[in-house]
Amino acid sequence: MRIAIDAMGGDHAPDEIVRGALLYRSEGGTADVVLVGDEARLRGSGLEIVHASSVVEMGEHPSSALRRRGDTSIGVATQLVKDGKADAVVSAGNTGATMAAALLILGRIRGIDRPALCGMLPTTKSGPACLLDAGATMDATAHNLLQYAQMASRFMEKVHRIARPSVGLLNVGEEPEKGGRTQLEAHALLRSAAGINFFGNVEGRDILRGTTDIVVTDGFTGNVVAKAMEGVLDVMTEGIGRDIFGGPLGKVAGAIAMPGIRTFRRAMDYEPYVSAPLLGANGVSVVTHGRARARMMRLAIDVAERAVASRLIDAIGSGAAAA
Amino acid sequence: MRIAIDAMGGDHAPDEIVRGALLYRSEGGTADVVLVGDEARLRGSGLEIVHASSVVEMGEHPSSALRRRGDTSIGVATQLVKDGKADAVVSAGNTGATMAAALLILGRIRGIDRPALCGMLPTTKSGPACLLDAGATMDATAHNLLQYAQMASRFMEKVHRIARPSVGLLNVGEEPEKGGRTQLEAHALLRSAAGINFFGNVEGRDILRGTTDIVVTDGFTGNVVAKAMEGVLDVMTEGIGRDIFGGPLGKVAGAIAMPGIRTFRRAMDYEPYVSAPLLGANGVSVVTHGRARARMMRLAIDVAERAVASRLIDAIGSGAAAA
Repeated sequence: MRIAIDAMGGDHAPDEIVRGALLYRSEGGTADVVLVGDEARLRGSGLEIVHASSVVEMGEHPSSALRRRGDTSIGVATQLVKDGKADAVVSAGNTGATMAAALLILGRIRGIDRPALCGMLPTTKSGPACLLDAGATMDATAHNLLQYAQMASRFMEKVHRIARPSVGLLNVGEEPEKGGRTQLEAHALLRSAAGINFFGNVEGRDILRGTTDIVVTDGFTGNVVAKAMEGVLDVMTEGIGRDIFGGPLGKVAGAIAMPGIRTFRRAMDYEPYVSAPLLGANGVSVVTHGRARARMMRLAIDVAERAVASRLIDAIGSGAAAA
Repeated sequence: MRIAIDAMGGDHAPDEIVRGALLYRSEGGTADVVLVGDEARLRGSGLEIVHASSVVEMGEHPSSALRRRGDTSIGVATQLVKDGKADAVVSAGNTGATMAAALLILGRIRGIDRPALCGMLPTTKSGPACLLDAGATMDATAHNLLQYAQMASRFMEKVHRIARPSVGLLNVGEEPEKGGRTQLEAHALLRSAAGINFFGNVEGRDILRGTTDIVVTDGFTGNVVAKAMEGVLDVMTEGIGRDIFGGPLGKVAGAIAMPGIRTFRRAMDYEPYVSAPLLGANGVSVVTHGRARARMMRLAIDVAERAVASRLIDAIGSGAAAA
């Protein structure tokens, strides 16, 4: 197996990205990794390099950047997958560009109408929750939501090894008659669909409780919910650091409470599962957080390896063909 | 001024509700308060009582409960406003029932197409943010969102005394071309609308940052976002209490860090502004949290008093007539 790494994407590229690839190899990763990016900056790691002379910047319009320049690191890395020279691509860069490259170069899986991004969130249960679509597609139909549920079920089974992952439909109340037109229609479709373990409606507060393994919603709602939740986590983390453990007394308290702080940090740590493939693309294209440092990158390569080894794309494709 | 209190609504009714009304009076509230509910249980406070023999329970279907029973505390309290016997109604009960009573009994303000609920949230700036619609109306149009922005602007000016409150449109990115059909259309309407100080698009993480005083979205998204954010606050608060300050060492640390914990709690304290009138109803009907105890109830009565004294309903009505 060979995994192409967009070595130029992300806030800490290329250094932390390269360190992540090396960590993956040194900690037992079995796939070969190929760094894609500026050869002059990537030399010296001992890993294979494929040169790409430009990067899609965070503020750029993704698909026009990809169309104008054939030599972006994410474009070249994704093309390796298309050409059979790599089995997967991993990027911490501009999410829009990773998605655009996957859809323009790899295309969609036959039978899947719209792609979906997974927002992977910590829960108070043991495992993570997959909130999707986190923003790949605006204006989703009920039928799109059904396909998201089916794709995410295969992803959680194959990559996270959860048997019969439960699916919740994000809604304003638990009762089946809640919500707008799309939710009412989606509820009916999900209830009678094959290949998913439908739990019913879930509310905003259920996401972090881990009421279901998968929470399905449209890309608009999923995106604002995921960002709002991340915003609360950030604001509270800052507030705890500043107000509670900031002053001289707080520093003493922090030293005493250190074992507990570590437990708390572990519970909120989403690095092991934050990375996920763009679901619906006809090839494995793993999106990780722009904040990724070496460890998160190493774990993102792991996700790509598991998606390839478990034949995730085939599983999604057979589900779509059967529907 | 006279304010009718649904004394039977909320998790801690009637005791904490009555205590809240007494607190309002003893701390300088100038309006008369009328307790509406089961006379036998409300006697002894010295406050005026209007009897109502039933309550809309939390699980009940609000409008059918109101239509079937003419003697619910929220129905009777709202009718007092309709009949000119009270200037406002305040309830910590079933939100759906408070909304249904307001719309069935008081009706809508002329020119307002759909009502909206405010989700009042703490921000890292000095004041709160008003996220609306938090769930009064599903399937909102762009024109509805414009009216929400106008109503919330009057509310934040009149009740929270914020001059030219800024309005953000909740979206998946800052750029004007982001979002689905409704957001694109709403952005254009908001940009050229009278009576609002439009900032532009805001993202999920801007809500708690207080990027704008008002964040406008449809009732489906607003409801799931508000509940998701509340969920994160709850989970983190529980986690801090259990993991960091729970064990024997944690208890020592907690005692040392107490001044900082108080600062942090104050920053996250939304009691002073969590209560808000249902915007668009043709009369002041203030919704507060089901968790309300005496202090939150006392502050909710304050909000009702300020809405009446500042002629909020008239201000919303003139804006709608001018549009």
